[in-house]
Amino acid sequence: MRKFSALLGVAAAAVMITLAVTAMRPQAAGSYADDRSEIEDLQARYLFALDFHDPELYSTFTDDGILDVGSGEIKGREAIKQTIARMPQPAATPGLHAAVGRHNISNIALKVDGNKATGRAYWFHYSNDNPKRAGVFDGFGHYEDDLVKVKGHWLFAKRRIYNENRDEWAYKGGKNPAW
Amino acid sequence: MRKFSALLGVAAAAVMITLAVTAMRPQAAGSYADDRSEIEDLQARYLFALDFHDPELYSTFTDDGILDVGSGEIKGREAIKQTIARMPQPAATPGLHAAVGRHNISNIALKVDGNKATGRAYWFHYSNDNPKRAGVFDGFGHYEDDLVKVKGHWLFAKRRIYNENRDEWAYKGGKNPAW
Amino acid sequence: MRKFSALLGVAAAAVMITLAVTAMRPQAAGSYADDRSEIEDLQARYLFALDFHDPELYSTFTDDGILDVGSGEIKGREAIKQTIARMPQPAATPGLHAAVGRHNISNIALKVDGNKATGRAYWFHYSNDNPKRAGVFDGFGHYEDDLVKVKGHWLFAKRRIYNENRDEWAYKGGKNPAW
Repeated sequence: MRKFSALLGVAAAAVMITLAVTAMRPQAAGSYADDRSEIEDLQARYLFALDFHDPELYSTFTDDGILDVGSGEIKGREAIKQTIARMPQPAATPGLHAAVGRHNISNIALKVDGNKATGRAYWFHYSNDNPKRAGVFDGFGHYEDDLVKVKGHWLFAKRRIYNENRDEWAYKGGKNPAW
Repeated sequence: MRKFSALLGVAAAAVMITLAVTAMRPQAAGSYADDRSEIEDLQARYLFALDFHDPELYSTFTDDGILDVGSGEIKGREAIKQTIARMPQPAATPGLHAAVGRHNISNIALKVDGNKATGRAYWFHYSNDNPKRAGVFDGFGHYEDDLVKVKGHWLFAKRRIYNENRDEWAYKGGKNPAW
Repeated sequence: MRKFSALLGVAAAAVMITLAVTAMRPQAAGSYADDRSEIEDLQARYLFALDFHDPELYSTFTDDGILDVGSGEIKGREAIKQTIARMPQPAATPGLHAAVGRHNISNIALKVDGNKATGRAYWFHYSNDNPKRAGVFDGFGHYEDDLVKVKGHWLFAKRRIYNENRDEWAYKGGKNPAW
């Protein structure tokens, strides 16, 4: 009887150890789906914060994160916060609701290597700063992103923006920036 | 020999129990990736149904689901079905293929809490109701969604639509509707 | 003492076998999230390759993959490669940076059945081939995709493209091409 108890005890321990090891695994290294879904969410939150002039945009970057819009690097969360605060807004027009502009992301190509990821994606913009508040498509380019996972959360380490409307900001690399 | 059989039997049982427990886990509570991927699919199916005037659109909502386009709430699957049936379609033009319009979703920010989820996303629209059937960008806004998981499937409990082309439907909250 | 060692040995074996079986599982059959995230990445890489005239586009198709733009099927990787090489590019304009065009995918509805998947999605296009290099929305349609998982990687088996700007390429099915 004592031997049987010992057997059961060891078997139970085997079950426990295995479940514990299995439970630890997802945290240790997420699947591509886990990482991609969290990065897609980060990309969306970045754009909402940008378009609604929310200083919280900085929280989508690492402490030493870099935002490069083509005319020099903006380094660190505080600098990014101030850049957002200074963003111009369309002037108010009496009798009309506020005009707004919106950035969109699409075609997200993403490579993940442990706690680092490299992204390429398209962006495009539309707005309605006209008397009819009609939606007008008005610009596009692409993003080149370096991302890092810090304490379980994905953040931008660097976002480089290319803009095809402006000669100085257009992509001149020629070849496919993705892979 | 009998003892060894007993040992093997207990070990095999330990393997079986552990595998069974592990197999049950994913169904019990999906990962963020699981939930997000299913909700992205729901969002896409909603838009195909909407643009192709498919009454099945109602099946993306809960029985008491609410669709709010800014001019009052449409409540329940039957009301949503009838709304789709009444949607205007571009008039036919002799010698030209049918003009169509398409709604698109982008920038999906999504929070999941068990069987409930809260979504924010941009939408934009384009169409080709002109003699050249040229694609024309013509409108945008954003969605504020409440979602619930019913019998393993995500559905819209409520979709609130903001439209920046129309004063009465534009978002006037000012601050970032996401987080 | 020897019996206790035997017990521990069997328990350890049970743990090892279970972990091995669990580790093998994801490869054998990915979750919907796994499959969808890999297919979204494939969709994005296809579009980068297309727009940047990268012959590697062919590598997003199976060996006997079919690309059907509405004017006949292009069959096999070599034929797809040659089609990309022949794609027209906007003429260079002195004093201006190169004009470019970009295809985007949205609203991806996706059904997965083991190693096969069926996709429906919208596409739209914009470009800047004008003196101001202003972004202009200029076309749209939808994709109907058959995908297969080959050696652990999702590939296009067939992509059928509908284009609403052109009568001969427009969708005339009427009903919802998704589900």
